[in-house]
Amino acid sequence: MNKKKVGIVGASGYSGEELVRLLLNHPYAELAAVTSRQHAGQTLGQVFPRFASHPRSPQLRFVDSNAALLAKQVDVVFLALPHGVAAEYALPLLDAGTTVIDLSADFRLKNAAVYEEFYGNPHPAPELLAKSVYGLPEIHRSSIQSARLIASPGCYPTSILVPVIPLLKAGLVKPTGIIADSLSGVSGAGRKAELDYLFVECNESVRPYGVPKHRHLSEIEEQLSLAAGQPVVIQFTPHLIPINRGILTTLYLAPTPQCNAEAIQEAYRLAYGNEPFVRLLSGKSLPDTKNVSSTNILELAWRLDPRTGRLVVMSAEDNLTKGASGQAVQSMNIRCGWPETAGLV
Amino acid sequence: MNKKKVGIVGASGYSGEELVRLLLNHPYAELAAVTSRQHAGQTLGQVFPRFASHPRSPQLRFVDSNAALLAKQVDVVFLALPHGVAAEYALPLLDAGTTVIDLSADFRLKNAAVYEEFYGNPHPAPELLAKSVYGLPEIHRSSIQSARLIASPGCYPTSILVPVIPLLKAGLVKPTGIIADSLSGVSGAGRKAELDYLFVECNESVRPYGVPKHRHLSEIEEQLSLAAGQPVVIQFTPHLIPINRGILTTLYLAPTPQCNAEAIQEAYRLAYGNEPFVRLLSGKSLPDTKNVSSTNILELAWRLDPRTGRLVVMSAEDNLTKGASGQAVQSMNIRCGWPETAGLV
Amino acid sequence: MNKKKVGIVGASGYSGEELVRLLLNHPYAELAAVTSRQHAGQTLGQVFPRFASHPRSPQLRFVDSNAALLAKQVDVVFLALPHGVAAEYALPLLDAGTTVIDLSADFRLKNAAVYEEFYGNPHPAPELLAKSVYGLPEIHRSSIQSARLIASPGCYPTSILVPVIPLLKAGLVKPTGIIADSLSGVSGAGRKAELDYLFVECNESVRPYGVPKHRHLSEIEEQLSLAAGQPVVIQFTPHLIPINRGILTTLYLAPTPQCNAEAIQEAYRLAYGNEPFVRLLSGKSLPDTKNVSSTNILELAWRLDPRTGRLVVMSAEDNLTKGASGQAVQSMNIRCGWPETAGLV
Amino acid sequence: MNKKKVGIVGASGYSGEELVRLLLNHPYAELAAVTSRQHAGQTLGQVFPRFASHPRSPQLRFVDSNAALLAKQVDVVFLALPHGVAAEYALPLLDAGTTVIDLSADFRLKNAAVYEEFYGNPHPAPELLAKSVYGLPEIHRSSIQSARLIASPGCYPTSILVPVIPLLKAGLVKPTGIIADSLSGVSGAGRKAELDYLFVECNESVRPYGVPKHRHLSEIEEQLSLAAGQPVVIQFTPHLIPINRGILTTLYLAPTPQCNAEAIQEAYRLAYGNEPFVRLLSGKSLPDTKNVSSTNILELAWRLDPRTGRLVVMSAEDNLTKGASGQAVQSMNIRCGWPETAGLV
Repeated sequence: MNKKKVGIVGASGYSGEELVRLLLNHPYAELAAVTSRQHAGQTLGQVFPRFASHPRSPQLRFVDSNAALLAKQVDVVFLALPHGVAAEYALPLLDAGTTVIDLSADFRLKNAAVYEEFYGNPHPAPELLAKSVYGLPEIHRSSIQSARLIASPGCYPTSILVPVIPLLKAGLVKPTGIIADSLSGVSGAGRKAELDYLFVECNESVRPYGVPKHRHLSEIEEQLSLAAGQPVVIQFTPHLIPINRGILTTLYLAPTPQCNAEAIQEAYRLAYGNEPFVRLLSGKSLPDTKNVSSTNILELAWRLDPRTGRLVVMSAEDNLTKGASGQAVQSMNIRCGWPETAGLV
Repeated sequence: MNKKKVGIVGASGYSGEELVRLLLNHPYAELAAVTSRQHAGQTLGQVFPRFASHPRSPQLRFVDSNAALLAKQVDVVFLALPHGVAAEYALPLLDAGTTVIDLSADFRLKNAAVYEEFYGNPHPAPELLAKSVYGLPEIHRSSIQSARLIASPGCYPTSILVPVIPLLKAGLVKPTGIIADSLSGVSGAGRKAELDYLFVECNESVRPYGVPKHRHLSEIEEQLSLAAGQPVVIQFTPHLIPINRGILTTLYLAPTPQCNAEAIQEAYRLAYGNEPFVRLLSGKSLPDTKNVSSTNILELAWRLDPRTGRLVVMSAEDNLTKGASGQAVQSMNIRCGWPETAGLV
Repeated sequence: MNKKKVGIVGASGYSGEELVRLLLNHPYAELAAVTSRQHAGQTLGQVFPRFASHPRSPQLRFVDSNAALLAKQVDVVFLALPHGVAAEYALPLLDAGTTVIDLSADFRLKNAAVYEEFYGNPHPAPELLAKSVYGLPEIHRSSIQSARLIASPGCYPTSILVPVIPLLKAGLVKPTGIIADSLSGVSGAGRKAELDYLFVECNESVRPYGVPKHRHLSEIEEQLSLAAGQPVVIQFTPHLIPINRGILTTLYLAPTPQCNAEAIQEAYRLAYGNEPFVRLLSGKSLPDTKNVSSTNILELAWRLDPRTGRLVVMSAEDNLTKGASGQAVQSMNIRCGWPETAGLV
Repeated sequence: MNKKKVGIVGASGYSGEELVRLLLNHPYAELAAVTSRQHAGQTLGQVFPRFASHPRSPQLRFVDSNAALLAKQVDVVFLALPHGVAAEYALPLLDAGTTVIDLSADFRLKNAAVYEEFYGNPHPAPELLAKSVYGLPEIHRSSIQSARLIASPGCYPTSILVPVIPLLKAGLVKPTGIIADSLSGVSGAGRKAELDYLFVECNESVRPYGVPKHRHLSEIEEQLSLAAGQPVVIQFTPHLIPINRGILTTLYLAPTPQCNAEAIQEAYRLAYGNEPFVRLLSGKSLPDTKNVSSTNILELAWRLDPRTGRLVVMSAEDNLTKGASGQAVQSMNIRCGWPETAGLV
């Protein structure tokens, strides 16, 4: 069988590296192009030593990005670029008929004004916002099947939306007063040479940041509002902890009168009982990032607290896999009509 | 000047080791006795190699605990024992006139029924509960000055009570709906040979535990209720993160109508402006455990979120120092009439 | 195609878990049985939560080991047992015609007297020593093809033998004066509830151990002697460092007169130029455990020092993959006539 | 008693921070000035949050360095500057009569030609090389007592010289064939925003670097040659491991005919039996960086290997304390006639 050719634009960061890892072993897709201004001319193995022994490493030489050329070489392009840069690359690729899966925040919002409020500048290509599909397969699978531009959600949104949306849809929790307390590994900050992310500054350290108005709140709230059928504003506190990979989110929710243990269990069973990448924990098990590292799985557990009347839901995922590149590959699988788990187990 | 003689019962764990570190360099107290059934006969340096070069190490030989003998040798005894064991050691020491500073949970509650509810067995010495003082100096300094039995609070309660009590007392936050989300280093689990705390099980892992009813809730709620003048029930979620030392707590609070930024700042200034061990952060600074490790300081910052109307308060402390042994030494300083910071800077 | 059925005896440690990871995704082998006295009755997902979502997890229930029964169920058995215990399991399996791949040290030596010298007790099944093959594929591939009992080498031997043997065979380094300085991640110590391996005892710690006579010296020296054609005694210093996975070994060797850069390069090219799991680094690259983690690859680089006249060779591998379970699977592939990289890329 | 005033030039890195920590609590010295181009105008607490609660923090504002002004304010200056920059600061301070303790490599060599060979450029102030004293107190205490310019040795040299020099002087080991294999924490690389030292690049990684000709070889060999009375060339391999603080060095030495266990023990006893900062381990104890972290102590153990005839010596120290700032303070204590352990226990 001929594999479909795919490319990665901006493949030199951590989510780019994770995309390479997944695509090199994909049964239906062939990684045919990798671009990076900084690494142009280097082989895959020179940029990412861990792939140096892969049979395809010598042929896969980084090139400077050229959308027109890329569009002729590949059918699907992943954009692993910083926020704000992705939009300019997407337009010519889409015009050329290429399927674009963007890992940045550029196309995740429907509302350009919200983008400007949270990102501080006007959206660079507002006309594309209407065409893009929010690439969270467990929620928007059918739209992804025919999408031309998929805005693949990042680590924090995934860790919050997957646990909360089924409860909102089932009317089991109130759309007000939602609190998300998240703990992220350092790879979530990207591969940037900044003092804050040095080993010595992160090891033996844990710290909150971006309190109280983190940029990713915009897309989280937009998606929750969609699910709730009314505007949702949440409290979100991200923290940086000394692990490479992983996000653990603890959610505090207010149950509605019809909420009880059976109803919650049933809502999750209906939503995720057959999902290959959502693991509903049972018994005394609680999520742990080490159980999902380098996998595309999100672990989920919940407790109804009889003392406070509150519902506590906890999720764990690998921020680079289910929280970034794995999820993007999952969307590609759906879009291309392949088994959804292809290359992800 | 003659130093006052002090002893440690059960000095072989992490908080015992931290007590040793602090007391070896204390200007007014002399560590005169260390006990441990397991290590009886060994020198300080054999049990804790890092103290082997201290001039006093060769003389300080561990002995099996004998309360009657200990009472003759020292004026102050720290109990660094597991919960449930401390009570039996405290009684004879108190009878002999020794000042007892207990680091376990045995004497932190006033209500023996609550003890039984949370610890699963009747309190071993309920008559002592009335006599003990909750050793949180920033809140109960005057009672500590004359206490015979000081129940020194642990890491989670300290990280929650210090931030919340002034706000409750000032009527700036509601006593309902309080949420405490805490992240603890692994030394908080004690020096126990259990699979869960192996390096490989904790490294690259973050996980919640004890959800939703952790034992320490009992003393946290008793103290908050005292401050609020009414029963307080809170939501508390502890997590284990891969650092040796440190606790980071993020608190979610509901402001009362009279609450605003100036009032919060003023309440904290009044409560802690002159406290040597509470650091009120200003500007963009947020707490970070690495800034307080091996110190007796608790860092505190807060943000009023205009989007949600909620108050987020964050604290960081070293779980072994301000969260255990440093705080116990601070209480000793107060009890003995020494400068409160003696041996702690 | 029907997959060949394989089993794992003693699958509850770290190398057992790594075997499970590799075998669950193997194209030609089917993991059909897992045994563990301690976990008998539990599913795969209960013992190893990270595999809970695998389609085969519910069926794969741990059983107490029964060699006779196992021999009827599977064609190949991996023994992931402590040293000394493996021998008793091997005998009945071999009698029943099962291929046995042992990850312990029990069958790695040819000389039962050396076993007794290093392990402190007589060998439990000396008659099997002559039948076993030392399962280092890069050195003993042809013997592995027809072996019934494969003694798969561990992490330290692999990290030393792969770099040194080609140089000894080519007469480029003297068989005397060899020094191996090795740094091992904590998973190398096994999944044992001992104080020494607690997170707090290993984090921010690096320490040598087993100096100067570590048990694995026996097999390392036996294999080096075989390659050199004369008895070889080496200096070996293992150290424990705070990583989960990985071994970095630095070797100090004395070049012979005929040794020079070209000769070394040629010796390694001949030995490993076509080996899929040995990566000969070039240019300025030096080995790094993070580039081989969770892979079956050993990275290798060398420097001739003109100042000292010495040859320094450095290797990096994942102690659980190339240093244990990956290597065992590689041997199975060879033994069964499958592509050697099957299930390992 | 009036304290002597001291200053730190270039106080914004990790060794600068460690100097601040030690000098803030020194009984005889008062930290009166801190300079940093980058942080000029900021308080101590703004640059190093962990000192923000220290009573002297508000007054201690960073200034841009001005040697003439500094010479009027303080009696002793520590230079915590990058190599090559220190020389230009030292000259005017020395002219003004200030005692200078330099933590860089600029004044550690006697031979300017060796400096140029290893550092790639001519020495900026060769006339000062003759005046400087190599500030290793255990070896050069008497010269330090009257030194005006002290070149305080760094982490690698200290971890090698302290163990080897007494053996060379006693003629117990040969001056040829010495091998030093060192493992350093990441703070040794300095506080530099480079990709190589990001948390994600260092965590779960161990790697050699600077093989085979590291810059610090020059001073190590000069000092060993001095002790041996003949030129000494050694093999040195530094490795980076994921800890914040600490160096573990394993040394491989060739005993001379007169060497035996008693002679080694006696040589070390004579050299270090009364040294407050060298801990000679006995029994089965081996060095461990966690036992010396944040202390000025170097742990030392050795094993004569009857199998190889080689002597293995191991040392552990905190690279920022005994390996940098603690050692510099120790030299200041000696130079100023204070107890050598002042401010260091």
